[in-house]
Amino acid sequence: MDLKPTKPLSGFIELLPAQQRCFDYCANKMQNVLQLAGFSLLDLPAIERAEVLTDKDNWDEIETQMFLFQKGDTKMGLRYDGTVGLSRYVAGHLNNLVFPFRASQFSKRYRGERAQRGRYREFYQMDLDIMGINSLSTNYDAEIISVIGAALDSVAEFIGPNEVRVGSRPFWDALFDYLELNEKQKKEIFVLIDKKDKMGDDDFSEGLKDTLNNPDKENIIKSVFADGYKKFVKKSEKLDAAIAELTDFMKVLDGMGVKNAIIDLSIARGLAYYTGLVFEFKLINHPELGTAAGGGRYADLAGKFSKTKIIGVGAAIGFSRIFASMLENNQIDLTRFSEPIDVAVLVMGDENLQYAMQVLNELRSANIPSIPYLDTDKKFKNQIEYADKIGARFAAIIGETEVAKNVIALKDMKSGNQETLSLADAIKKIKGA
Amino acid sequence: MDLKPTKPLSGFIELLPAQQRCFDYCANKMQNVLQLAGFSLLDLPAIERAEVLTDKDNWDEIETQMFLFQKGDTKMGLRYDGTVGLSRYVAGHLNNLVFPFRASQFSKRYRGERAQRGRYREFYQMDLDIMGINSLSTNYDAEIISVIGAALDSVAEFIGPNEVRVGSRPFWDALFDYLELNEKQKKEIFVLIDKKDKMGDDDFSEGLKDTLNNPDKENIIKSVFADGYKKFVKKSEKLDAAIAELTDFMKVLDGMGVKNAIIDLSIARGLAYYTGLVFEFKLINHPELGTAAGGGRYADLAGKFSKTKIIGVGAAIGFSRIFASMLENNQIDLTRFSEPIDVAVLVMGDENLQYAMQVLNELRSANIPSIPYLDTDKKFKNQIEYADKIGARFAAIIGETEVAKNVIALKDMKSGNQETLSLADAIKKIKGA
Repeated sequence: MDLKPTKPLSGFIELLPAQQRCFDYCANKMQNVLQLAGFSLLDLPAIERAEVLTDKDNWDEIETQMFLFQKGDTKMGLRYDGTVGLSRYVAGHLNNLVFPFRASQFSKRYRGERAQRGRYREFYQMDLDIMGINSLSTNYDAEIISVIGAALDSVAEFIGPNEVRVGSRPFWDALFDYLELNEKQKKEIFVLIDKKDKMGDDDFSEGLKDTLNNPDKENIIKSVFADGYKKFVKKSEKLDAAIAELTDFMKVLDGMGVKNAIIDLSIARGLAYYTGLVFEFKLINHPELGTAAGGGRYADLAGKFSKTKIIGVGAAIGFSRIFASMLENNQIDLTRFSEPIDVAVLVMGDENLQYAMQVLNELRSANIPSIPYLDTDKKFKNQIEYADKIGARFAAIIGETEVAKNVIALKDMKSGNQETLSLADAIKKIKGA
Repeated sequence: MDLKPTKPLSGFIELLPAQQRCFDYCANKMQNVLQLAGFSLLDLPAIERAEVLTDKDNWDEIETQMFLFQKGDTKMGLRYDGTVGLSRYVAGHLNNLVFPFRASQFSKRYRGERAQRGRYREFYQMDLDIMGINSLSTNYDAEIISVIGAALDSVAEFIGPNEVRVGSRPFWDALFDYLELNEKQKKEIFVLIDKKDKMGDDDFSEGLKDTLNNPDKENIIKSVFADGYKKFVKKSEKLDAAIAELTDFMKVLDGMGVKNAIIDLSIARGLAYYTGLVFEFKLINHPELGTAAGGGRYADLAGKFSKTKIIGVGAAIGFSRIFASMLENNQIDLTRFSEPIDVAVLVMGDENLQYAMQVLNELRSANIPSIPYLDTDKKFKNQIEYADKIGARFAAIIGETEVAKNVIALKDMKSGNQETLSLADAIKKIKGA
């Protein structure tokens, strides 16, 4: 019989135990920040009705981007982000939740497209969202940015410092009105702005020309990327309102202690959802990872599920994008995640098993991670080799002498020193070491 | 526009925040037991190649049981258990792992079949497995049982006490040989034994008769359920070996401190994988939940992936089966999970925001879960109502007086008492309360 492949499908992540411990450690650190900030951790289904996942019905095309399947008459698929499920959930539980409602999610999402280098088809994102009914101060946008910053800072020992750039959808809307663009032009230009980083300056200029065919207007739009918003002050009421919102917001951020934020009007965050301020985090030492986290404000989160107007500000941290990628590229020192075990309990013969297991239970009860070697007929040499391989700090050796005297032989695996101790003294030594 | 449905698909679990906190609390408690026992937590892809998920190729039938989809030429699907992925992973990383290798998984699994009452289509299981190359003492089977018991005990306040029943595949093999059954009969009888609980005694008798048409043999098999293994001692060498293995095993279990185990030869654990001892946990106070955890030993875990013989003993805890079910049926008192927030920071006007956010940051730095109310133009009445609704123990009220004096007004939400305190004193009070 041919053997089946042992590699995971391309685009799927599979970590070794020490890598996984580091991944989980970072997730826990960041989740802890979110929990202190009062975000309720939700765990929503990974599968949603297709009609919830998308408003489109060009199934052939959608099928190339998502994992879809049909059960009976129902088309369903794996979620590609956390927002679709969250908006359904919040709309469905309006009376069970307290608003402003703060939710976080740390879950797997899926992209069904063909695997590409550096693009995962299954990946974790960590979302945080604050939702209000009918009103929600932009102070909450600032708090979300502050909390994401704190979450990333909590794992700075691995990923280094971060910075956040803040953009404004209303600024562009106001500028497009000021330039008297029609709806089609507005949409096309916005797509160009969103893709500017990927397409490069030349293609961007070309695109502007194709859509506008007006050198003055083209230059005005380009000037935003070079000089920012300053020359647009007092050009129109709408522009002034957008600029005031953005500059006031930066003061609030500063007041909250967020010192690594700058205005960057090139931040667009795609076409979907967002209607207000938008922002992106980058890792200063890891530009190769692109956007580490991003989000913004949406004026009507759950319009397709509910007539109640739910205003939200939310963001997703690209958890796998950061950590799976750094781990796969050996950019994190795993030494401290390689040796999680304090004691290997070595049992010299089945007749000593009962005593050894009592020792094991006591060690674990004392919160000391311990593994027994239970192929008790194996030689001491094999057993001590195992203790060494799993990186145990100590070996607790149990033979007939130890059982008879109600003690254990505790070997320090680094120094090689061995002492005979009562269990109570051994526990003290292990905890003190 | 018609509104889209807000309910999740049938068979999918969706918990409210307090329920989710309880679910996560229990998961963490149990995971902690597994970690102390040295199990490496793995997080494997939820999607596997179809050829990994199944050895069959009757796709129409498989498609009714699983979530399958095709991408390009590759058929793939969502895992239905943790063992398929684990066996692939272990076979693929033989040189990166230390054996005996201990793995745990806590992950979602999927069943694509039509939704039935009490059957989830997306559910968590918590797996633990110990795998050895070429040999693995049954002492490890006992340790797995001991660790599952400890994990269930760690959440006994919610689910009550548990008991474990131990069966033996070799006993039935020996008995079938002793009764001189042919291969077809062996297989049919084993299916009957496995389904006995579901089918009831009459159908079971009928089934025995259909297959064997031999009253003596039928009665012998039935007698196992009534009287156990005792009358089969000294009937054949193979029976004696199986009985000795089982009775010795119970002594090892007892020596490990597992006092709630009994022999129950009706435990069969289906047809797949298992070749040795098998076991099932039940919750004594919750018979309606059926099997809470189950597992056993398999002689060749990864035969379809590797020529290396990997012997394993493993088990799965039906985490959603237990906890989602109890939570959905309101069988757990959620009082202590309803109020996770210590302090609501209430901000009386945007001019006090900066000071309030400094207070907020200090509270969170002191590990005090805190939520600010940032619609600062809302009246005090609205803000204090919010503090009450989220169940905050304290409200920290920040107005211009507090800012001017560098203090906070701390209101105890239960007693209604309010004091003006320095931030340091407030933190002491909150932590002491």
